[in-house]
Amino acid sequence: MAFRKFLPLFDRVLVQRLVAETVTKGGIMLPEKAQGKVLQATVVAVGPGTTDKSGDLQPVSVKVGEMVLLPEYGGTKVILEDKDYFLFRDGDILGKYVE
Amino acid sequence: MAFRKFLPLFDRVLVQRLVAETVTKGGIMLPEKAQGKVLQATVVAVGPGTTDKSGDLQPVSVKVGEMVLLPEYGGTKVILEDKDYFLFRDGDILGKYVE
Amino acid sequence: MAFRKFLPLFDRVLVQRLVAETVTKGGIMLPEKAQGKVLQATVVAVGPGTTDKSGDLQPVSVKVGEMVLLPEYGGTKVILEDKDYFLFRDGDILGKYVE
Amino acid sequence: MAFRKFLPLFDRVLVQRLVAETVTKGGIMLPEKAQGKVLQATVVAVGPGTTDKSGDLQPVSVKVGEMVLLPEYGGTKVILEDKDYFLFRDGDILGKYVE
Amino acid sequence: MAFRKFLPLFDRVLVQRLVAETVTKGGIMLPEKAQGKVLQATVVAVGPGTTDKSGDLQPVSVKVGEMVLLPEYGGTKVILEDKDYFLFRDGDILGKYVE
Amino acid sequence: MAFRKFLPLFDRVLVQRLVAETVTKGGIMLPEKAQGKVLQATVVAVGPGTTDKSGDLQPVSVKVGEMVLLPEYGGTKVILEDKDYFLFRDGDILGKYVE
Amino acid sequence: MAFRKFLPLFDRVLVQRLVAETVTKGGIMLPEKAQGKVLQATVVAVGPGTTDKSGDLQPVSVKVGEMVLLPEYGGTKVILEDKDYFLFRDGDILGKYVE
Repeated sequence: MAFRKFLPLFDRVLVQRLVAETVTKGGIMLPEKAQGKVLQATVVAVGPGTTDKSGDLQPVSVKVGEMVLLPEYGGTKVILEDKDYFLFRDGDILGKYVE
Repeated sequence: MAFRKFLPLFDRVLVQRLVAETVTKGGIMLPEKAQGKVLQATVVAVGPGTTDKSGDLQPVSVKVGEMVLLPEYGGTKVILEDKDYFLFRDGDILGKYVE
Repeated sequence: MAFRKFLPLFDRVLVQRLVAETVTKGGIMLPEKAQGKVLQATVVAVGPGTTDKSGDLQPVSVKVGEMVLLPEYGGTKVILEDKDYFLFRDGDILGKYVE
Repeated sequence: MAFRKFLPLFDRVLVQRLVAETVTKGGIMLPEKAQGKVLQATVVAVGPGTTDKSGDLQPVSVKVGEMVLLPEYGGTKVILEDKDYFLFRDGDILGKYVE
Repeated sequence: MAFRKFLPLFDRVLVQRLVAETVTKGGIMLPEKAQGKVLQATVVAVGPGTTDKSGDLQPVSVKVGEMVLLPEYGGTKVILEDKDYFLFRDGDILGKYVE
Repeated sequence: MAFRKFLPLFDRVLVQRLVAETVTKGGIMLPEKAQGKVLQATVVAVGPGTTDKSGDLQPVSVKVGEMVLLPEYGGTKVILEDKDYFLFRDGDILGKYVE
Repeated sequence: MAFRKFLPLFDRVLVQRLVAETVTKGGIMLPEKAQGKVLQATVVAVGPGTTDKSGDLQPVSVKVGEMVLLPEYGGTKVILEDKDYFLFRDGDILGKYVE
């Protein structure tokens, strides 16, 4: 897969946003404007982390495959093999969904 | 419950605001405009904390279930299972109510 | 009392401003506009302090019951049981009155 | 005396400005506008100092009774027993006059 | 080669952007405006790194010859022997492509 | 002398600017406007230095009597015994002239 | 020489820009406007460096006589014995040319 070959640097996290819902629970098609901005994403690659003041490497707090909640603004759009991904700093990711 | 599955990252705290009072003590219905902004909230999930300069993890200062006082501005609205929650940095929460 | 149940977080200090003088020394009633802004306040609750770079807790520099001098601007108004209190960062309090 | 009872916090220094010269050396009365802003002041109270990164208390660099040179701007006016005093951060005081 | 003789200082990385695609996959010539800004670049020289708070040298995170993804903005254009190169801080490079 | 009695605090350096040249090498009188701003000055008093993060005192890098090069802007004018002096932070002095 | 007597302070580096090319390779005279800004310079004096957080002196990363690449903006013009020199912070110099 494309993102396997891309390695974010430092504490950057590469995520892929979930697909926006285009149909309501009741089965009605939603126009694009009514589709909310998708803030949930899957982690597809993580950087090695950053070095703290003691010189120790602090790994990022999410792992590949985890589903995370993104902030509404921020992040850097990255196009890899014609697909849209986003890079976020580890510290900007709001939280993750755990079992 | 929904928020059990959501884990805030770093020193973030997920809270649920108390319901605004819609009736006065005397029993009069309050229109929405007259209802004050609710600054009291219950902690529903907390992040693991942040790492200090010595590399030690500093846990957040509130616990799940505690009632806290929020600042009037700030915080990030998060919708989980159609309910409104808010994420605050641990350091932005003004205080908590203790027995 | 109300404020006993409220615990400020970190280095926050909860104070209650002294009552403004409404009568001059000579006995003349002062209109509200002529009453100076009261900068003296009594400490009613203090946070546990903040953690310094060495990881040690630095307690706040004032104690409950002490009379302090507030800066003219700043602080966060907090209403507890229908009374007005103010939260100040320990470092923003200008000084205290000692015997 | 009034300022004995007031203790500045942290690295704050309470000073009292010298009285502006209202008469020239030649004996001519100066109107208030022509009187220069007095930047010399006497230290009347000092805070305990601030804690440095190693957790040690750093005392302020001036002592009660010393005459100091103030910066032209800055400082917080404080009225104690109907007299004007000024609070300056220790690091903002430009220098002191030594014998 | 020219860049062999140029040594970036600190954590700077000298890169050469890939040539923009001027022909589509289908064989159609692209006008210059339609050619996207090339964000992929090859590292041609790296600085020795920066000294961290413990006094240890932190080498940069990319090596000469690696292909990296640049941020859309930033970087300093440098002309060496009539060719365009760009200097980026190590921390500003988004990621690298690994086998 | 006046400045012997004035002791700058922290890393402040008291300097006296050299007198502007009012006559060209060829002997022509220069109007005041044509006289360049004098950036060379003599150090007349130095502060004790500042405390670094390890708690050690870092003395200033110039000594009384040394001739220094001042930045074009900055510095605080100080009048001591009717003479003009300037206070600069040690770190703002560009360099010094050595034998 | 003049600059031998001038010692930059801290991590400042005194450089002399190379002379702008006034004739093209083909032998055509260039008007001043067409002459590019010269970003290459020779180091003529260096400061002792700065003290890091551990209290150790960090020497500057260039040596007298080395040819360096300057950033397009920044630096402080210094006139020593009627010649133009420029002071740059060590960290602002982009790179150096090595054999």
